[in-house]
Amino acid sequence: MSNFQLSLIDTANSVEIALNEMLKKQGNGLMAAPVHHAVLNGGKRLRAFLTIHSSNIFGVHKETAIQAAMAIECQHAYSLVHDDLPCMDNDDLRRGKPTVHIKWDEATATLTGDALQALAFELIASLQNVDAYKIVELSKRLAKASGMQGMVLGQAQDIDAETSTKILSLEKITALQQNKTGALIEWASTSGAILAGQDDKKLLNYARLIGLAFQIQDDILDIEGDSLIAGKRLHKDINAGKATFVSHLGMDNAKMRAKELIDRAIDSLVSYGDKAEPMRQVAKFIIERKM
Amino acid sequence: MSNFQLSLIDTANSVEIALNEMLKKQGNGLMAAPVHHAVLNGGKRLRAFLTIHSSNIFGVHKETAIQAAMAIECQHAYSLVHDDLPCMDNDDLRRGKPTVHIKWDEATATLTGDALQALAFELIASLQNVDAYKIVELSKRLAKASGMQGMVLGQAQDIDAETSTKILSLEKITALQQNKTGALIEWASTSGAILAGQDDKKLLNYARLIGLAFQIQDDILDIEGDSLIAGKRLHKDINAGKATFVSHLGMDNAKMRAKELIDRAIDSLVSYGDKAEPMRQVAKFIIERKM
Repeated sequence: MSNFQLSLIDTANSVEIALNEMLKKQGNGLMAAPVHHAVLNGGKRLRAFLTIHSSNIFGVHKETAIQAAMAIECQHAYSLVHDDLPCMDNDDLRRGKPTVHIKWDEATATLTGDALQALAFELIASLQNVDAYKIVELSKRLAKASGMQGMVLGQAQDIDAETSTKILSLEKITALQQNKTGALIEWASTSGAILAGQDDKKLLNYARLIGLAFQIQDDILDIEGDSLIAGKRLHKDINAGKATFVSHLGMDNAKMRAKELIDRAIDSLVSYGDKAEPMRQVAKFIIERKM
Repeated sequence: MSNFQLSLIDTANSVEIALNEMLKKQGNGLMAAPVHHAVLNGGKRLRAFLTIHSSNIFGVHKETAIQAAMAIECQHAYSLVHDDLPCMDNDDLRRGKPTVHIKWDEATATLTGDALQALAFELIASLQNVDAYKIVELSKRLAKASGMQGMVLGQAQDIDAETSTKILSLEKITALQQNKTGALIEWASTSGAILAGQDDKKLLNYARLIGLAFQIQDDILDIEGDSLIAGKRLHKDINAGKATFVSHLGMDNAKMRAKELIDRAIDSLVSYGDKAEPMRQVAKFIIERKM
């Protein structure tokens, strides 16, 4: 295992320990078990990694960064639970485990997503030793990234594309994915700068490049991946005859394009020196991952 | 029409004009129409009224209060859209109009609720000319009131009670309703004090009393109401054999109990003088309403 992979696992462990502790404090009411199942599900914690290591560039206190990372993981987990619902992507399996509506039922899954979104905003609003105006900025950005002009719009566009007979253009796929996946990756990648009260332009640029590469890699994995490693159904897009980056560009060009985006993302962080090394490593990982 | 009813309509109009303007700024993407349908649906705007008139007690700027009122109406609207889903209460009609999953579909209704929750937090984080620490407090309180220890828990408890064979005790019904409906009423009733940086104890006491009276009145209307006036199915609880305040207390005692709670709520605001008059009037309205 590479040093980077160890560092990814180490970051995931820190966040999961913190999530577990935080959830204990939310009591053992009816929602405790499904919320726990949804958020502590063995994810890669890519968004948490971006949050923690963008924070590290600016010397943000580790505990603060971990709490912001917990928030973005809750928001991401909410979106997965709702996306998996029968009325959406209808997925039974998520990271090798039954989805919330399979283990419980649809009502519980709907409420679990709702609770996790509220929890994300609660975690941000509860950040300690952070200037209130920075908290407000993080909260506003999360809301915009998640809502009807961000992640929710992306999911609606995705469903719309599936039911439409028109083939989506590369431009429209890019916009859709920017909303659906890119917006939260942007939040995570820039959160360190916001927490430090610093300019976030370089990180924003980095985030847009890796976000697009992430989606191209997802489309590549949908064809070349191993569902046992990925822990979810594959070939969904290709079976549904969906337009993807790969169907537009061809496999070789898609891989070249993803590589080029990642190279540019890495270059954009040059001025941050060694402190940005984990952010460069994770960018490479995005196109090397098998899940 | 009484002066109070005119003032309720006037407040509802102000908030609806503001909601309409705000939604225009959210663009005309795929989610614009269902979100508009969900939030501009002719509701009573009780939570908006409580927000605006609790703010007025402390001299909070009107525009600030209206924006906070928009936020709580978005959050309330989100909860209604999700509660109406087939996997939850399965309601086709809301205030005399088709619910979002009937007019569109379940995926759109799920996403509409999700977008509205994000919008509520965006509106709070976007409050102008308010100290950031007050915004953080409002946001934290909304998250707690809405999540797995608040509104979402209440809905889960309600569903659990419906599928259980046990008859819920009066104590458990009270706790369930405090979570499901009371928490957002509390947020609205105390928001003026938070925006003004003042103590919210009296308003919190007021909110708990009117919240409980509100639910008793809902149970009364479920039996005595007119579905044409209410704009929704009635006799749901009684048909489902659900334990309610009325089934526990009997109709006369339920009415007496609601009246007593409202009297106490009104008394609790005595020190605020004339400025709290609308808050007293709306308390009376809660047990006089037919919808």
